[in-house]
Amino acid sequence: MTKGPSLDDYRVPYFGDKKADKFSLGALDTAAKPFSAGSKDADRGRLSEIGTKLDVQQERLHAQRRQRVLVVLQGMDTSGKDGTIRGVFHEVDPLGLRIVPFRAPTPIEASRDFLWRVHAQVPAAGELAIFNRSHYEDVLVPFVMGGIDSAECERRYRQIRDFELMLSQTGTSIIKCMLHISKDEQRRRIQARIDDPTKHWKFDISDLDARKHWDAYQDAYRGALAATSTEYAPWYVIPADSKSHRNVMVGMLLLRLLESLKLEYPPAKEELAGLKIE
Amino acid sequence: MTKGPSLDDYRVPYFGDKKADKFSLGALDTAAKPFSAGSKDADRGRLSEIGTKLDVQQERLHAQRRQRVLVVLQGMDTSGKDGTIRGVFHEVDPLGLRIVPFRAPTPIEASRDFLWRVHAQVPAAGELAIFNRSHYEDVLVPFVMGGIDSAECERRYRQIRDFELMLSQTGTSIIKCMLHISKDEQRRRIQARIDDPTKHWKFDISDLDARKHWDAYQDAYRGALAATSTEYAPWYVIPADSKSHRNVMVGMLLLRLLESLKLEYPPAKEELAGLKIE
Repeated sequence: MTKGPSLDDYRVPYFGDKKADKFSLGALDTAAKPFSAGSKDADRGRLSEIGTKLDVQQERLHAQRRQRVLVVLQGMDTSGKDGTIRGVFHEVDPLGLRIVPFRAPTPIEASRDFLWRVHAQVPAAGELAIFNRSHYEDVLVPFVMGGIDSAECERRYRQIRDFELMLSQTGTSIIKCMLHISKDEQRRRIQARIDDPTKHWKFDISDLDARKHWDAYQDAYRGALAATSTEYAPWYVIPADSKSHRNVMVGMLLLRLLESLKLEYPPAKEELAGLKIE
Repeated sequence: MTKGPSLDDYRVPYFGDKKADKFSLGALDTAAKPFSAGSKDADRGRLSEIGTKLDVQQERLHAQRRQRVLVVLQGMDTSGKDGTIRGVFHEVDPLGLRIVPFRAPTPIEASRDFLWRVHAQVPAAGELAIFNRSHYEDVLVPFVMGGIDSAECERRYRQIRDFELMLSQTGTSIIKCMLHISKDEQRRRIQARIDDPTKHWKFDISDLDARKHWDAYQDAYRGALAATSTEYAPWYVIPADSKSHRNVMVGMLLLRLLESLKLEYPPAKEELAGLKIE
């Protein structure tokens, strides 16, 4: 009897796990489509079904106003963070959803510790917050560009683990997705943006700097993911060369998380029973 | 030749306009459906068309990252603020949308001026922000409950006009919608929530206090709308007994506003012309 693919096959081994040492991004096929329904159209259909279920779960989360959910999206330029947000959360009621983009720190942000601006944006009770980039930029960019040494990097990994543990212990469920594309796929996507002048706004020539350091970034991601994938805030690597499959997989992960919370509508209020309004 | 209804028929006369003195909420039919396509289903179809166009406009707003748009939603309990957000903004990319709910001020908020927490939440460049309730609560609730006298109320009206003028002059387009339901329609909606225990979370027994002061609130709304409808931040009264028609009308108003901004994608970047990525 063969077993189908499991979402957990794409989970980064937990920090401290023996398998974590062997974790390699290069070994993961960016073009894989393990959860595909067979075609792009079928995947869109599947995503729509997932979207409907996500909407139901999210309304309960919002109604209950007790638990909090945080989704962290990371990935190289053009890996599809914006597209994932649009695709997966399209059917979710905008009322209980908060998208938080993190860009290069402003002087005010940079003059505090790197978790300061992130902490200010964590989800409130009943909220589903999506971080479009996150505090992980602060162990990726300076690591590659030489702003921090490896001792400082290890210190930050630990600070991140401690911070996420605290969030988890105080009622926030966390899921982290790295959208994993190949260098070749990035080339195609950047080229497509360049060749279409109406897409130039999505692209800045300085984005090419990160591409020049592709291998160093892959290495930085590998280190960061292995050091911060935990039971309370696991990392998943999403094969992201296929956009429709990427959306299906992120949707499945989020739906699984929400369903595991056993969200229910709050109990009926006794004082309202039989009340007639005039 | 007869003229069809115009959105401007539902605009509150501007402050200072002679007609403003005659403005009356009671004269406006809450059950009117001037922009209905004929049936509930037809209205849903029309809303979907509007949603598609809103999505296009909003992407340009986001791409341009220059202009800002603010939608203020006000209305009595059950008037449909949440439902409007869900209905109208369902098709808009969540990336460029920010929903800001204002509840009773926290002690930290209440210890500042009433515009402080509002100013902190105004839209950024490229953002479409929806205020679910707003600074108008501070000229409605305390006015009805006796927390401020009419001199203080007039002072706040002026402070609001000045604040909104500043926002407008610095690049924010503002539209304000009062969702107008009848007292009888509110009774039906509250009763429906009470009769369905899974809807109890949407209702708090203290909500009935505001209903007891229905006429005073209508009067407070009339005063606030007449004193703060301006060319740069107009108020519209939306007949809101029909949910599908309410959504169509708010969608039409927002689409008209966005289209008036003549949003275009940013110009192509010369430095990208002919560039080949390796």
